[in-house]
Amino acid sequence: MRAEPRPRAQRREDALRRLGEEIDCWVASADEAGNAHLVPFSYYWDGAAIVLAMPPGNRTAVNLLRAGVGRIALDGTRDVVLVDGTVEHGADTTTIEAYVAHSGWDPRTGPGEYVWLRVVARRIQAWREANELRGRTLMNDGEWLPLDA
Amino acid sequence: MRAEPRPRAQRREDALRRLGEEIDCWVASADEAGNAHLVPFSYYWDGAAIVLAMPPGNRTAVNLLRAGVGRIALDGTRDVVLVDGTVEHGADTTTIEAYVAHSGWDPRTGPGEYVWLRVVARRIQAWREANELRGRTLMNDGEWLPLDA
Repeated sequence: MRAEPRPRAQRREDALRRLGEEIDCWVASADEAGNAHLVPFSYYWDGAAIVLAMPPGNRTAVNLLRAGVGRIALDGTRDVVLVDGTVEHGADTTTIEAYVAHSGWDPRTGPGEYVWLRVVARRIQAWREANELRGRTLMNDGEWLPLDA
Repeated sequence: MRAEPRPRAQRREDALRRLGEEIDCWVASADEAGNAHLVPFSYYWDGAAIVLAMPPGNRTAVNLLRAGVGRIALDGTRDVVLVDGTVEHGADTTTIEAYVAHSGWDPRTGPGEYVWLRVVARRIQAWREANELRGRTLMNDGEWLPLDA
């Protein structure tokens, strides 16, 4: 039996809890020719952005820094949380240490160089099944939509 | 405790089983400006291609038909199956009926028009954890790699 569509307040609470708790996400990016790339990465949600670390030559890093935007999904095709964001280069020490504590992985200890990227949420969508497609936008243009909808 | 890396034969068997059994996938595509798009879709694996159905105006459809390529992942950031493929427009009746039987959803009964797309696998990669990154390519340029590796 299909569940009733969740109201926006519930979707926002669920999405923020999952963003805070989960470790991995799917990062979609594209090059200037329009070739899509898609790879999973560990992340940390700092309350405004998805924080990522990767080698500077990584195709996702090159794409994100070129385009200035990226689209990220949590795992789960039947409990979708999608974040479109603008890319900022760099993260402060507090953020980096929170990333390490959250992911259990410290890129600073590896042999190679890593860049830190923050994909700052501008649009967040959440839905489970087709009956939740309507009302799936929780944040638009960086602003949370009203909760009494 | 981390599992031993699977040999290629095992990864191929696992990937083909999951491609055959699962219902949803993540489809990454991009427009001509290099903006990445990412949405889950139901699919059917016909043995060579991931078969998708979507409205012709859907952003993923427009992107896939323009670019002629797409990148698709099964769900599961810790059990990755990634397919890069070339896009073919249309599917025969046998394929469409297999899609309907597999997904439990018949786009032909909906109110709107649907296009059928086949993303023909040219490259397939599979890995679980970092220790499986080496050897993750199972198919390249449309050819399965030798299994005795």
